[in-house]
Amino acid sequence: MKGSEKYIQAINNFIEEVVILKEPLQLYEPIHYIVSLGGKRVRPTLTLMTCDVLKEDYSKAIPAALALELFHNFSLIHDDIMDRAPMRRGKDTVHEKWDLNTGILSGDALLILAYQLFEKYPPNIFQEMAMLFSKTALQVCEGQQYDIDFESSDHVSLEDYLKMINYKTAVLLGAAMKMGAIVAKESDECKNNFYEFGRNLGIAFQLQDDYLDAFGNTSSFGKQIGGDILSNKKTFLYLMAEKNGNNNDINELKRLFSEAPDNHQQKIEKVISIYKSAGVIEATLEEIQKYTRKANSNLQALPISEEDKNKLFTYGQYLMGREV
Amino acid sequence: MKGSEKYIQAINNFIEEVVILKEPLQLYEPIHYIVSLGGKRVRPTLTLMTCDVLKEDYSKAIPAALALELFHNFSLIHDDIMDRAPMRRGKDTVHEKWDLNTGILSGDALLILAYQLFEKYPPNIFQEMAMLFSKTALQVCEGQQYDIDFESSDHVSLEDYLKMINYKTAVLLGAAMKMGAIVAKESDECKNNFYEFGRNLGIAFQLQDDYLDAFGNTSSFGKQIGGDILSNKKTFLYLMAEKNGNNNDINELKRLFSEAPDNHQQKIEKVISIYKSAGVIEATLEEIQKYTRKANSNLQALPISEEDKNKLFTYGQYLMGREV
Repeated sequence: MKGSEKYIQAINNFIEEVVILKEPLQLYEPIHYIVSLGGKRVRPTLTLMTCDVLKEDYSKAIPAALALELFHNFSLIHDDIMDRAPMRRGKDTVHEKWDLNTGILSGDALLILAYQLFEKYPPNIFQEMAMLFSKTALQVCEGQQYDIDFESSDHVSLEDYLKMINYKTAVLLGAAMKMGAIVAKESDECKNNFYEFGRNLGIAFQLQDDYLDAFGNTSSFGKQIGGDILSNKKTFLYLMAEKNGNNNDINELKRLFSEAPDNHQQKIEKVISIYKSAGVIEATLEEIQKYTRKANSNLQALPISEEDKNKLFTYGQYLMGREV
Repeated sequence: MKGSEKYIQAINNFIEEVVILKEPLQLYEPIHYIVSLGGKRVRPTLTLMTCDVLKEDYSKAIPAALALELFHNFSLIHDDIMDRAPMRRGKDTVHEKWDLNTGILSGDALLILAYQLFEKYPPNIFQEMAMLFSKTALQVCEGQQYDIDFESSDHVSLEDYLKMINYKTAVLLGAAMKMGAIVAKESDECKNNFYEFGRNLGIAFQLQDDYLDAFGNTSSFGKQIGGDILSNKKTFLYLMAEKNGNNNDINELKRLFSEAPDNHQQKIEKVISIYKSAGVIEATLEEIQKYTRKANSNLQALPISEEDKNKLFTYGQYLMGREV
């Protein structure tokens, strides 16, 4: 996105400096590989942008920003193993290109390398960052565990689901922004407002992702419609239909989600039709708006200029994607 | 061992306080399980004993000691997956009792929990500990990778092997002792002498472990003789035979190590016979003594009483086991 290229460039330059190929190659090559696959660098961008709008030299936040990007890549490697995913960003996943052991061990090393990046800071800042990082990282693990648990559970509530995406996705975005405010030595109140802004944006973002899977425009969403439906994933849409639908709809939905039919298109259409009749579109959009409003209220409370609020707002819009 | 029970008791009490069962249970139950399997608690004992002989209140070192024990258990969970090991300390391994995903994720969480324990210390100590911990943890990952690499390599030298066991086993024992000296706020020289004592002891210990696999007394060693031989593991003994043996011996050894015969006893006897004729017994004992001497020289340089030196020496003897 226009305006954020300078952050991505700064991160990519630092990655080249820090993530180097060395012995044992079998450990460091997969790390170099996954980190070089790119991606939008959302988390480090949030860190640097936060530091920048707080009028602190954002280059000081680069090590913390990269720590979050390395952590994100660690979780991608291990999650891809757990999900048996063959592809990531259009390329082979690490365990697919190498093997299971390589995926486990290079993921472990990435997590440790992330911690090492905080060593660039003086003891007080180091401790504050490492504490936030550990707390967040543990929540991400818990979120991943809830996600796995939900697959085999018939008793997942909307509240459970929101807690899961809060842990699995949102807290890391909150921590990314808070890191930028820590570098800028801001007050606890300011740091927490940035944290909450990122966290609420993260929840809205994840709900939007669920929404677009069923109701997105293929060409602008960039993913095939119905991926979650075909993998029988209990998204916010599914849980909302289960809550609001009539008995016939719920039974039909459960039946459809216990099957893996040859006719993909038919299953997707049937599920979407139930979502529509159960009022899932309106309810989900309302929930997205609820978290977007929360994020905006956090944004308004930040001690930064209107121009900079607009900059953060625009980046949020960019993340929220291409529709709604 | 007599004299070290108080440290083990202190660690076990703190484990009960810190490692609790909470939601999501699927994440925290395996952690509780592996940590409760027991073991000799060698690493935390070294930390507490170091702090104690330096006349600092050893209870101050308990969080750091437990961090090392949690890290050790993290590496056991992930290594057991990589080694496809079904049993650990006479019980099912985590991935066997639960599944692969549980092993990966609960291992990840254990590593993060280990870092969190340093939060009990003020910023300067926190940073010094976390830096030592990250450096050591990364070396342990590298050691594990070298160990995996060596399995499929025909060009492993004795130097390569010593480097591998230094990283995989010894540096963590060194770090355990150094942590105790950090808590006691000792000089860099003193901290490094404790580190080197633990590290050299660790190398001697691992070589001893290799030695006892072939030449131990079953009843006192407590393991079946020849386990390494049957799993075709290129231990120090194998690599020494490959270096010092005559061509016939080397060829026969390579042939034996490419087979998995039904007659286990015969293979073990043949390999041991080659080890003997290639002078492996003398060469290995000499190497063990070399590292034991180094450790003792580090021990003598420590700024502690003769009585306390004797205490550390005795614990080292206990670790080195029941023979030689």
